[in-house]
Amino acid sequence: MTRSRNTSPSRAISSPSGSDFLQLTIDDAPPRGRCEWLTEQLRLAIADGRLPIGATLPATRTLAADLRVSRGVVTEAYQRLVEDGHVAGHGRGGTTVVAAPIGTRPPRATPRAVRPSNPFTGPPEADVFDAVRAAPARIDLTPGVPDLAAFPRAAWMRAERAVLDGLSAADFGYGDPRGAPALRAEVATWLARNRGIRVEPAEVVIVAGVAQALALFARVFRDQGIDRIAVEDPSSLGARQHLNHWGLTTPPIAVDSAGLDVEELRASGAPAALLTPAHQFPTGVVLDGERRRELLRWAEEGGVIVEDDYDAEHRYGRAPVPALRSRYAERICYAGSVSKWLAPALRIGWLLAPPEYFDAVVSAKRFTDLGSPVLAQLVLAHLMRSGEMERQLRFVRTRHRRRRDAMAAAIAEHLPGAVVHGVAAGLHLTVTWDTGPDDVELAEAALASGVKVQPLSWHRQRPGPPGLVLGYGARTPTDIADAVATLGALR
Amino acid sequence: MTRSRNTSPSRAISSPSGSDFLQLTIDDAPPRGRCEWLTEQLRLAIADGRLPIGATLPATRTLAADLRVSRGVVTEAYQRLVEDGHVAGHGRGGTTVVAAPIGTRPPRATPRAVRPSNPFTGPPEADVFDAVRAAPARIDLTPGVPDLAAFPRAAWMRAERAVLDGLSAADFGYGDPRGAPALRAEVATWLARNRGIRVEPAEVVIVAGVAQALALFARVFRDQGIDRIAVEDPSSLGARQHLNHWGLTTPPIAVDSAGLDVEELRASGAPAALLTPAHQFPTGVVLDGERRRELLRWAEEGGVIVEDDYDAEHRYGRAPVPALRSRYAERICYAGSVSKWLAPALRIGWLLAPPEYFDAVVSAKRFTDLGSPVLAQLVLAHLMRSGEMERQLRFVRTRHRRRRDAMAAAIAEHLPGAVVHGVAAGLHLTVTWDTGPDDVELAEAALASGVKVQPLSWHRQRPGPPGLVLGYGARTPTDIADAVATLGALR
Repeated sequence: MTRSRNTSPSRAISSPSGSDFLQLTIDDAPPRGRCEWLTEQLRLAIADGRLPIGATLPATRTLAADLRVSRGVVTEAYQRLVEDGHVAGHGRGGTTVVAAPIGTRPPRATPRAVRPSNPFTGPPEADVFDAVRAAPARIDLTPGVPDLAAFPRAAWMRAERAVLDGLSAADFGYGDPRGAPALRAEVATWLARNRGIRVEPAEVVIVAGVAQALALFARVFRDQGIDRIAVEDPSSLGARQHLNHWGLTTPPIAVDSAGLDVEELRASGAPAALLTPAHQFPTGVVLDGERRRELLRWAEEGGVIVEDDYDAEHRYGRAPVPALRSRYAERICYAGSVSKWLAPALRIGWLLAPPEYFDAVVSAKRFTDLGSPVLAQLVLAHLMRSGEMERQLRFVRTRHRRRRDAMAAAIAEHLPGAVVHGVAAGLHLTVTWDTGPDDVELAEAALASGVKVQPLSWHRQRPGPPGLVLGYGARTPTDIADAVATLGALR
Repeated sequence: MTRSRNTSPSRAISSPSGSDFLQLTIDDAPPRGRCEWLTEQLRLAIADGRLPIGATLPATRTLAADLRVSRGVVTEAYQRLVEDGHVAGHGRGGTTVVAAPIGTRPPRATPRAVRPSNPFTGPPEADVFDAVRAAPARIDLTPGVPDLAAFPRAAWMRAERAVLDGLSAADFGYGDPRGAPALRAEVATWLARNRGIRVEPAEVVIVAGVAQALALFARVFRDQGIDRIAVEDPSSLGARQHLNHWGLTTPPIAVDSAGLDVEELRASGAPAALLTPAHQFPTGVVLDGERRRELLRWAEEGGVIVEDDYDAEHRYGRAPVPALRSRYAERICYAGSVSKWLAPALRIGWLLAPPEYFDAVVSAKRFTDLGSPVLAQLVLAHLMRSGEMERQLRFVRTRHRRRRDAMAAAIAEHLPGAVVHGVAAGLHLTVTWDTGPDDVELAEAALASGVKVQPLSWHRQRPGPPGLVLGYGARTPTDIADAVATLGALR
């Protein structure tokens, strides 16, 4: 510490005396052997892997300035390493490491176990979707992914340039954990126009997709004494894993052609329920009017609803349905995202919480990550405001519709005994068979034949007919026909 | 559901029959009164706020196609609203809402309470930093923020263009929860070069900043039965709030001029400890060699260390110190980020976990957000690989150094009784007084005079001399001198 009354700041503050690069400090070097010392330090770093093959050494001028040695010391040290054969100069490309001394590198700490590449051995674990992703396949029909080739790269870049040009320095700092005000306003407008939900921007919380919304709701529920949340059966394995991870059990409730069986929900005694009312995953059923009314009565009597509005935007053969949340804000937690019509990799979604949970949800978000990254939020807000996002949605919907048609035609041709579910909306079809082989075995055989699909039983908690969940959003009609033909040959 | 054997897909699949926009379906309209019906639906939406003032109506052609009515129906409905005075046409700019019917909008649900604008009333709560951020001030000396005006906008855009040009469609999908492989590789290289840590890319987990790393470590600790983590006293209030939120208590351990008092840590019986060894927050002390050895002995005997390497990059007057983690990977959790030399708004950081915690940390990350957004990770990897990030770090360090000098000089002039801590590194100075007024009152008075600073007592758990934590990274030398003069006038 410095008494400012005793010491002038200019004396108290000395100059930098070392390099971040390898934490080299010239004080460690003998005054008359600096070049030897530096050469040896670099050799050690190459030998022990701190400077791996391909690494670039700092410019001689820069390192000399950091170490406060003459540039000749550094040039000479580099030259010795060139002569050793450890590094090579590439003119303006810099000096890079080309070889490590043989046998000098100490053994590494325990290497990470390689994950099994077969996701179909045993019941699905927490990392099953990582294993699915990592498994090589000729054609990937994993559901829940839109046409990623349609990502509007040029429009994104234009919007980002406009955003960066207009950003103040403070915008690069820590932001509001609830999200950027510009995006919250656009999402409020979007929800009013497209989902029938009237909401103030102040009530919108920007999150890292529906998955994070579920995590935040689950944490708040636990703190409120809710430890059970009923889920549709079948329903997303991933969503169930999330809720289970956060300490909620997920009792299954049957889904029939009208949606969730609300009587069974009531009988279960579960205090909360997660639904995908606009397009049930994976059956594609829409919650019908009578069930919606029953469900809202259940909520009025104290039930809490989590509405996962995950792909409400993807309609083809049916009328649009406003979100449940538009009818009863007081007991409905709502979550949506851009993952199903723009890109999951953006990790941008939003949630609405009932007033009684709002502050707790914001607190959970704050202590999860201090708020989502700001730049991408502002770019998305710009694209929503300009109408680009509605155009994008129309565009991908047309493409998805063609792909849906291609898949339905291929199923009719190659899987003649299958029952097809969910043609009217979404990014996937589900096929079931009245009887047949185990669907996990079928999915495993499909992967062995180069086609990645999900067995329906992964998404079930109770026994039911075998089936497959087949995503069509991200594949071309040709690939889809090819993949379904492969499945047909396996049946 | 559809029996594919009974129904041809082309018949099973009907065309869209409604609009996402306001969920309008023509089936709801009387066949001979479609224009009246549409006009009324639009009036209702304007009245109840689903179409706020400034909202743009869809193009007539688009809406007509969605509703399967003739374009004249939509044009006529829009025209009636124009005549009402509710909307106005702007040629190619579209038709926008300009006025709502008076008195028809139903009352809104409970508006959110307005947060108190004074962050200095009472002890700091969970949202204290939001209140600080929201408070207006002429000059903001909040610590922990780098020179945000130096954000390399042009380089970022160039790198993003290169990344977008090279991205495959699959890269826009769900990714590895541990982060993009390209960034994990660059971070491994960065840690080896600049922090002395040898680590495989597979051991690096990309997170949303150090705050998220603390959240993930805290969750894993709780699951392992660790419910206490010792912290330096003083130390970051924000970090403490994070740990407390996740269920860990944070017993305070004294910091002296050599760093954390390891004897006191040992006596506390705490199973884990959070440290900022390279540059203690907020005192600026560097953990000295003897203490480092003692601390590593404590870890060998079973203690777990969390190393927050939060601004190791900002050295001015001292030699670089390798990270503690470089000495003992088995018991040290490590966290770093770009927040202190690029921008907190990016929410990008990284963690290293001891092998025994690695899988649990990855699982916690997966179920928090399915992994950080991919695009920004790849842009950062590109900038690190090209050397742009090292240049950026050198650039901001030079600017920060000038600002540090300006602040030290201003303190010597305007706060002659103050003891100055932490001149050798960082983004802030801490000043203390042997005696003096309550520092919260001083910070409150400073805010009333237009200067935002943090009272040192916020960061203390045990009583100590009053003081202020003064960030200089984000302000110009002129602003800094002005702000410190203002503080001097208040003393």
